[in-house]
Amino acid sequence: MRHIISVRDLERREIDGLLDRAGEIEARRFDPDLLAGRILGLFFFEPSTRTRMSFESAMARLGGVSLSMGSVEASSVAKGETLADTIRVVSGYVDAIVLRHPREGAARLASEFASVPVINAGDGAGQHPSQTLLDLYTIRQSMPLDGLRVGLLGDLRYGRTTHSLAIALSLYKAEIAAIAPKGLELPSGIIHELAGRGTVVSEYTAVEEVIDDLDVLYVTRIQRERFPDVASYLDVASSYRITPDLVRCAQPHMIVLHPLPRMDEIDPGVDALPNAKYFEQAHHGVSVRMAMLSEVMG
Amino acid sequence: MRHIISVRDLERREIDGLLDRAGEIEARRFDPDLLAGRILGLFFFEPSTRTRMSFESAMARLGGVSLSMGSVEASSVAKGETLADTIRVVSGYVDAIVLRHPREGAARLASEFASVPVINAGDGAGQHPSQTLLDLYTIRQSMPLDGLRVGLLGDLRYGRTTHSLAIALSLYKAEIAAIAPKGLELPSGIIHELAGRGTVVSEYTAVEEVIDDLDVLYVTRIQRERFPDVASYLDVASSYRITPDLVRCAQPHMIVLHPLPRMDEIDPGVDALPNAKYFEQAHHGVSVRMAMLSEVMG
Amino acid sequence: MRHIISVRDLERREIDGLLDRAGEIEARRFDPDLLAGRILGLFFFEPSTRTRMSFESAMARLGGVSLSMGSVEASSVAKGETLADTIRVVSGYVDAIVLRHPREGAARLASEFASVPVINAGDGAGQHPSQTLLDLYTIRQSMPLDGLRVGLLGDLRYGRTTHSLAIALSLYKAEIAAIAPKGLELPSGIIHELAGRGTVVSEYTAVEEVIDDLDVLYVTRIQRERFPDVASYLDVASSYRITPDLVRCAQPHMIVLHPLPRMDEIDPGVDALPNAKYFEQAHHGVSVRMAMLSEVMG
Repeated sequence: MRHIISVRDLERREIDGLLDRAGEIEARRFDPDLLAGRILGLFFFEPSTRTRMSFESAMARLGGVSLSMGSVEASSVAKGETLADTIRVVSGYVDAIVLRHPREGAARLASEFASVPVINAGDGAGQHPSQTLLDLYTIRQSMPLDGLRVGLLGDLRYGRTTHSLAIALSLYKAEIAAIAPKGLELPSGIIHELAGRGTVVSEYTAVEEVIDDLDVLYVTRIQRERFPDVASYLDVASSYRITPDLVRCAQPHMIVLHPLPRMDEIDPGVDALPNAKYFEQAHHGVSVRMAMLSEVMG
Repeated sequence: MRHIISVRDLERREIDGLLDRAGEIEARRFDPDLLAGRILGLFFFEPSTRTRMSFESAMARLGGVSLSMGSVEASSVAKGETLADTIRVVSGYVDAIVLRHPREGAARLASEFASVPVINAGDGAGQHPSQTLLDLYTIRQSMPLDGLRVGLLGDLRYGRTTHSLAIALSLYKAEIAAIAPKGLELPSGIIHELAGRGTVVSEYTAVEEVIDDLDVLYVTRIQRERFPDVASYLDVASSYRITPDLVRCAQPHMIVLHPLPRMDEIDPGVDALPNAKYFEQAHHGVSVRMAMLSEVMG
Repeated sequence: MRHIISVRDLERREIDGLLDRAGEIEARRFDPDLLAGRILGLFFFEPSTRTRMSFESAMARLGGVSLSMGSVEASSVAKGETLADTIRVVSGYVDAIVLRHPREGAARLASEFASVPVINAGDGAGQHPSQTLLDLYTIRQSMPLDGLRVGLLGDLRYGRTTHSLAIALSLYKAEIAAIAPKGLELPSGIIHELAGRGTVVSEYTAVEEVIDDLDVLYVTRIQRERFPDVASYLDVASSYRITPDLVRCAQPHMIVLHPLPRMDEIDPGVDALPNAKYFEQAHHGVSVRMAMLSEVMG
């Protein structure tokens, strides 16, 4: 059986295959016969409306049906059931499981007890492969993936999407510019892992130092609660804010991505620039998830 | 693109067209090919099980699939995302959006950022066009819509369904009898707007004064929290309660409507009278919403 | 119209018919034409993710669509609507109703006001016929239903699943061994009812006294909150815990069932024994509910 748990499990050939499939699917828009009669179970132990809805949309476009666990409070989990038991039971109700869980490793554990394929939609500080695949897909819509110079901006310490993306990009010989405020730098463990995969990380504290040299600028949110007081948060937030003037300093082909939702990190004035690809990026989530669902159930 | 935001935007010809279409659909009961493969997104920032379920039922009868946002707490909105961003993102997931939002004007705003049609399912004190259309449809099942004398009863100050209905009825040269307790009268702004549309409003404080002259009696709930104390609420509530004896004072063809849920405003003894049309009215919600969905997506 | 409210309403012939139908359905796995275009409404006034999801899975496998009420807080019920009114309204939205409600008798009441079939998915201390049917179905997969010796273990006072199962088994001339700690014994009313149906109940306080004589051991949870303090709970819980050693004392053909979720009542070491049928039992819930849905709507 085929599970999709971590980007670290995927070879370049497999990622390319999924992205190719997403491209074919996007060209057709929907394919209502592919998963007709199939049932997808969405088990979100942490809420995420957007990820859930884009999986549901993907399943519907393939002709299948989605069932959702509803709130954790209403579930057998609230009565103290183990994740292993929950997964064994629901394996009889659905043809594949999408799991989001606060505990790192939960998806891997689930895959060991499930009798149907499991897709990881986020496990704590761990992996969220569908986000990484849609990030790669969006980049590939604008330029070939090989040898890119990619800037990761914002909270690189806690932001798991940037970690997964960097790991995946190492398969494509990217150079990584890690741009983060003091205290929120990319963890040294990730930097070492990337080095082991042949990828060099350069570190910066200001985007101006490096923006004219990037192909992709991947912006993430800096969370207020990481800072001791509002003043120090505002100070950092304002210097990590992407504006139209800043984007005009970049090479014309540079694209701006963001996993969304954004708060103030990207000025709304950037939205109208051709470099802004973050809404398209969100939309590509459906095609990429259609590819993942057809991969595990098709 | 076609949005349905406010009854005020609709011409008589458009309303007649939607009601005709609802009638054709009701005769067929369902039409599973019309919206096969289409996806409806339900974004309810205020809960409303009934409106949501009747849109979902309508979509299912047309062969389409519905996705729901789930709770606001679980969504990106809780992280501070703007409505404009939310709408831009989900436009990539669905083929039409049904929006309920506590802020007046939210649906109009959403329609400016959406790349798919938007149907307003209630925005604060603003419009709720599907309710008005099903009210009109229910009346038309019993009598032609032109030149009717319609009594609006209950909380006419805060009750938005009565405002929308009165505005729509002005296209059909209705006369309006506004029957409300002191302090909950129809706002003067609505009375002036109706006058500008050629519709005369007469005001009453007791239903007995006017019931023998009505074709339609539209009853709404009086909410306890509008009153300073329980005694003054009970006093008003009891004199605005519709009983079988009261209905027998009306012309035999007069119909009783209510947007539901009802509390004590209508005595259960009325349910068995041929004048009681409020449950049929609720059921017509499905046909009318099928017509709306096929109008914007068909 | 056909409702399914209580096991007490069902004759042996009807139960056999439903179980036969479930068997045919399980062989085919799904039948997407049987209920195509039909809509099932799930009204859970008490949460139960598992029961709800298995009904939704069953409906999807038959080609139909499910709508859920969502939370009670979000519904018209929160505004004070009567169950009778709610049921009358939603009868216009769906083709059948599955109801779970905290009040005993709620499903029977609903069936009187509904214009579509009602299936009871639990009403307070009352009935939950789909659980009983899947229990019987699971037993019948292993052995003929007639003349079995069935041990019911755990909280037999408050555990409604054991009551319903015992009532149904009386149609098949079962002998019941009721094994419960002091204070949680099978209520005398149930024992008398069973006697009136020709079924003898023997009572035990320890499973060791009787396990070698059973064909089926039906384990249920003992809830901590039934005990005055943690020590007395732990004392009881440990002596009502099923272990591999205990199962090895039984006849080889004895099967172990549990309505799930389990806490500590069954040692995970039992899972690998051929006697353990509780996960299959949960899975059979889908086939049995497909049979019920096709019975009332097919």
